[in-house]
Amino acid sequence: MEHPDLELTLFGPHQQVIAELSRLPQPLAAATSRLVVSDAPLSIAQTSSAAWALRHGQTSSMACMLRSLKDGEAAAGVSAGNTAALVALSRRSLGTLPGVSRPAISTAIPARHGRRCYLLDLGANVDSPAHRLVDFAVMGAAMAQCVDEVALPKVALLNVGAEATKGSASVREADRLLREYPDASAFAYQGYAEGGDLFDGGLDVVVCDGFVGNAVLKASEGLTRMLVERVQMAFESRLSGRLASLLAKPVLRYLKQELNPVRYNGASLLGLQGIVVKSHGGTQAEGFYYAIQRALSEVEHNLPARMAARWQRR
Amino acid sequence: MEHPDLELTLFGPHQQVIAELSRLPQPLAAATSRLVVSDAPLSIAQTSSAAWALRHGQTSSMACMLRSLKDGEAAAGVSAGNTAALVALSRRSLGTLPGVSRPAISTAIPARHGRRCYLLDLGANVDSPAHRLVDFAVMGAAMAQCVDEVALPKVALLNVGAEATKGSASVREADRLLREYPDASAFAYQGYAEGGDLFDGGLDVVVCDGFVGNAVLKASEGLTRMLVERVQMAFESRLSGRLASLLAKPVLRYLKQELNPVRYNGASLLGLQGIVVKSHGGTQAEGFYYAIQRALSEVEHNLPARMAARWQRR
Repeated sequence: MEHPDLELTLFGPHQQVIAELSRLPQPLAAATSRLVVSDAPLSIAQTSSAAWALRHGQTSSMACMLRSLKDGEAAAGVSAGNTAALVALSRRSLGTLPGVSRPAISTAIPARHGRRCYLLDLGANVDSPAHRLVDFAVMGAAMAQCVDEVALPKVALLNVGAEATKGSASVREADRLLREYPDASAFAYQGYAEGGDLFDGGLDVVVCDGFVGNAVLKASEGLTRMLVERVQMAFESRLSGRLASLLAKPVLRYLKQELNPVRYNGASLLGLQGIVVKSHGGTQAEGFYYAIQRALSEVEHNLPARMAARWQRR
Repeated sequence: MEHPDLELTLFGPHQQVIAELSRLPQPLAAATSRLVVSDAPLSIAQTSSAAWALRHGQTSSMACMLRSLKDGEAAAGVSAGNTAALVALSRRSLGTLPGVSRPAISTAIPARHGRRCYLLDLGANVDSPAHRLVDFAVMGAAMAQCVDEVALPKVALLNVGAEATKGSASVREADRLLREYPDASAFAYQGYAEGGDLFDGGLDVVVCDGFVGNAVLKASEGLTRMLVERVQMAFESRLSGRLASLLAKPVLRYLKQELNPVRYNGASLLGLQGIVVKSHGGTQAEGFYYAIQRALSEVEHNLPARMAARWQRR
């Protein structure tokens, strides 16, 4: 059993959660001693707006989870629910760090040579002005420093080209602000990056507006699904015979996992006075596993407090 | 030989182009009878701004190519040069279609089940207002109708979620305009799409601001490069022995081609009074081949004239 001292509280309709737990296979059922079930009658639908959640979501599993976090009963919260509702409820319940106006969402994109790159924002903010893009840079860099122990994270700003004349007004203004950023120990600013640089392993943090980050992340997931299908079809149509399929099967099994790099990482809500991780919406147990791992590692590294220090320093 | 009646004019520094042609292997050298070399002393660097190209680029290969297109000597132009310069010079040299304020860049993204989806804009326009997003929809749909003979193209607007409350102000306004679009034979509007829907094969056209489209396209290219590397490494580390590598090699060769779906399609400049196709910048002969194919098929289908009819009809 990993993390034997981990305790988990499950928020949801009591009867339903208990019924689900009772269906677990035997070896897992033994682990339920570390689970506590906390009744929360309401769930927020994926189609609900953030405004609806703020108005009517007080008894939802999400709001109950955030309350236990706020009250210090839990050290971190994980949810696979409606992202907009999670951002809005987290912000109201926990509050943002002093100096941060709005939380951002970030995930670690796997890159070449076993490296990773934090991409943010992934959709909590659209039409981000320049100063907010700078906030994203500070938050992403703090994450890389605290959790991944990168001494001076390499931060870049996503743009449509490397030339200074390109891009939207807010991106060009953010570039100027990042070049003049007063705290030289926060990050090493690398200038503009293009979409392809995300996966090259040369950057620790890439910053963009939430609309762009969301589109890039979801397109990457969709492309990966298609490519995995193509790999499988190539094997099936080109390698016939028992020997071939015997040889191919283990590679194929390995590849299916390996080629799904953006799917299972939890996405962190950054800039809050507390630790909240969004697990992938379409996910099963594995997605929750990675989201809980991410939350644990943020707890171990005391991320919110160390991130708060960044805003005090400048 | 494909397209035996195709004639190609190469624009560039005369001596240099002739020297390159003389180095072609024998079977290709025979085909040079269909090539004409037209001297253009200047080339526009990838780092030059569009403004620089407009001011100083008159003798560039790009401007010379566009002049021959304008004068009716060529039916279509292909370039692998600086995209911003190509858009700016094309717009000045050829002019846009009546009703279109700025050209857009579009490419066919390969999707599931052997289908394709036109994505636009890819970077000619950043911070696109709602009416320009509507122009993109009309242009993309005209492309799918004329070139791919899709009777009523399914058009969607890229957003951060399917809910009506989400997205930037310009995207929500464009959604309203597209729902009310007067010409019902132009396209079937499907509402919002997310990044992952691009590759699913259910849409013919996806519309977004050029900043977003550029980031999505370049990230897809970068991700593909990384995944191809991983497939190769998985084979090399998991299948040892001669028999295994014998079996794996043809699959791997096939996959390398198959897994590079976004790389080789030419990108069309739409909304111009002429046909201009951008070949991939980092490309060799194969990229030019596909860009020329794309240009030929736009010539055959008389794309600009049929696209112009769309604006007259509404």
